Amino acid sequence: MPELRKDPITGRWVIIATDRAKRPSDFSREQVIPKGGGFCPFCPGNELKTPPEILAYRENGGPNEKGWTLRVVPNKFPALRVEGDLNRQGQGLYDKMTGIGAHEVIIETPEHKLTLADLSEKQVGDVFWAFRDRILDLKNDARLRYILVFKNHGEAAGASLEHTHSQLIALPVVPKRVQEELDGARRYFDFKERCVYCDIIRQELDMGTRVVLETDHFVAVEPFAPRFPFETWILPRIHHSHFEASTAAAIQNLAWITRQTIRKVDKVLERPPYNLMLHSAPVQEGMVGYYHWHIELIPKLTKVAGFEWGTGFYINPTPPEEAATFLREAGLV
Amino acid sequence: MPELRKDPITGRWVIIATDRAKRPSDFSREQVIPKGGGFCPFCPGNELKTPPEILAYRENGGPNEKGWTLRVVPNKFPALRVEGDLNRQGQGLYDKMTGIGAHEVIIETPEHKLTLADLSEKQVGDVFWAFRDRILDLKNDARLRYILVFKNHGEAAGASLEHTHSQLIALPVVPKRVQEELDGARRYFDFKERCVYCDIIRQELDMGTRVVLETDHFVAVEPFAPRFPFETWILPRIHHSHFEASTAAAIQNLAWITRQTIRKVDKVLERPPYNLMLHSAPVQEGMVGYYHWHIELIPKLTKVAGFEWGTGFYINPTPPEEAATFLREAGLV
Repeated sequence: MPELRKDPITGRWVIIATDRAKRPSDFSREQVIPKGGGFCPFCPGNELKTPPEILAYRENGGPNEKGWTLRVVPNKFPALRVEGDLNRQGQGLYDKMTGIGAHEVIIETPEHKLTLADLSEKQVGDVFWAFRDRILDLKNDARLRYILVFKNHGEAAGASLEHTHSQLIALPVVPKRVQEELDGARRYFDFKERCVYCDIIRQELDMGTRVVLETDHFVAVEPFAPRFPFETWILPRIHHSHFEASTAAAIQNLAWITRQTIRKVDKVLERPPYNLMLHSAPVQEGMVGYYHWHIELIPKLTKVAGFEWGTGFYINPTPPEEAATFLREAGLV
Repeated sequence: MPELRKDPITGRWVIIATDRAKRPSDFSREQVIPKGGGFCPFCPGNELKTPPEILAYRENGGPNEKGWTLRVVPNKFPALRVEGDLNRQGQGLYDKMTGIGAHEVIIETPEHKLTLADLSEKQVGDVFWAFRDRILDLKNDARLRYILVFKNHGEAAGASLEHTHSQLIALPVVPKRVQEELDGARRYFDFKERCVYCDIIRQELDMGTRVVLETDHFVAVEPFAPRFPFETWILPRIHHSHFEASTAAAIQNLAWITRQTIRKVDKVLERPPYNLMLHSAPVQEGMVGYYHWHIELIPKLTKVAGFEWGTGFYINPTPPEEAATFLREAGLV
């Protein structure tokens, strides 16, 4: 079983994949990805090459048959498994537990050659509906405290398969970076009695210099202190701590702004690799006033080097105000 | 002037390089590095192509002439500058200050084609002496609160020039990841009245399964909860919070163990790109009982993807016990 281990100094948990341990000679092979034309387990007709589907939106056909427009399957090589007990234990000064959790893949379209931004607004909306459906299902398992939904687009951003897909990982712990965000937001709330994200949205809309797009329900901005060039956040204008509480109208609006934002990034940066992450409050907590769910989009343009690893301190060569100007000037695409 | 900005939620500071802002079209050019044979500003004879040297160890010649064996120069494209005032200020809910600091390059050898691990033990020792000399000099500037010394080896690890070198960045703030380490170590100390790193060393030497190498003064181990495959820490066995307090005997010992460790990693992983970071206590603080300086070596074997960025939660495919076995079995090299 994979194992969760806690760094005794910082409290950071890591997953140690004990099952399919990589030997030194395995690493070079990581670079290889199937190019269009090779076999793709996510393409229609190959449904039996993935584990059985957990969810599908389909126009026709039965489970694990052709006819789907979106499909959710367990990751064939999961970082975590649902079966078993957490089995928390110590080992001298160290802490560990079994790697309980879920690792799923959301296949966003049957079309091999399209990217998320190439899909219709309706299809992008379906991707968000699938995120919501899976979160609502998984949060019934009280062991699962945090659900991360993310997308690696392009090999440089960590995608190992070309066919466009997102991933979901449900964890028995709240990850450190998320906990920091929660703690930071709570400190602000304790001091001001206001949500820091709500204040950010107000100030950004007021200043305008870092705003990329706005709709009735959402605003896309370059954050004030971005780690990376063209890092972009999409925030709901109405306060909500949990993504899965979104209304149908909000999800349709989110599909539009996300698709537009990625298309702008694609236009300005010539279709870069990127990572997209959904940040939402821990699923077992009720609605909270201090946290505000949002999406973070990070085009992969620079290499993260020793300085960043050593310090968590980032050098960003592009001021967010300039990035916002480029993205605004790209127009609607 | 470059600007330091603080994320209002997590408190993470980032450097925004306002001077030499990168436009979208600048990013593709980052991939290009000079290959052996091209012009190299770090090679002997090209001393005037770098800013004037700050420090050099030399066999003959005068400042900025040939004859040096190691040379420290300001980074030609610094992320931070020494001149000016910090000028802390708010902007609505945001905080920022001027990017005051230092950014230096340690050219480890005049030989273009050698790597750090190819150098003699004496030469590697000189690299550590240079780190020590520069830290002792820079800590006289009371504005500089943290000094990070690091090495990016290979293009994939962020090195933009091939000629082997390390870098030093002196900062007016303690970076977040360092502060987390300090806070975590202090929490442990408050609870146990012992240094967590000292306890780790005792437990690792006792168990032996994650130990790579040991000498009179140091131990090289795979940490219990490593973020990356083959992540290796080199820790002094005698408690010290500040690297710059190291004795001559310790530095010579450090040169041996660091060189051996990198050579083992080179042998087992076929000369991978890597990042090496020196973690030491903030320079303006006196010796502290709770923190223990050390080196972290991270071979660059996997890609960091959305999941890691989104959560600070790492999936490591190689258990540290297996990595330690591979490195031990490589013998002395």
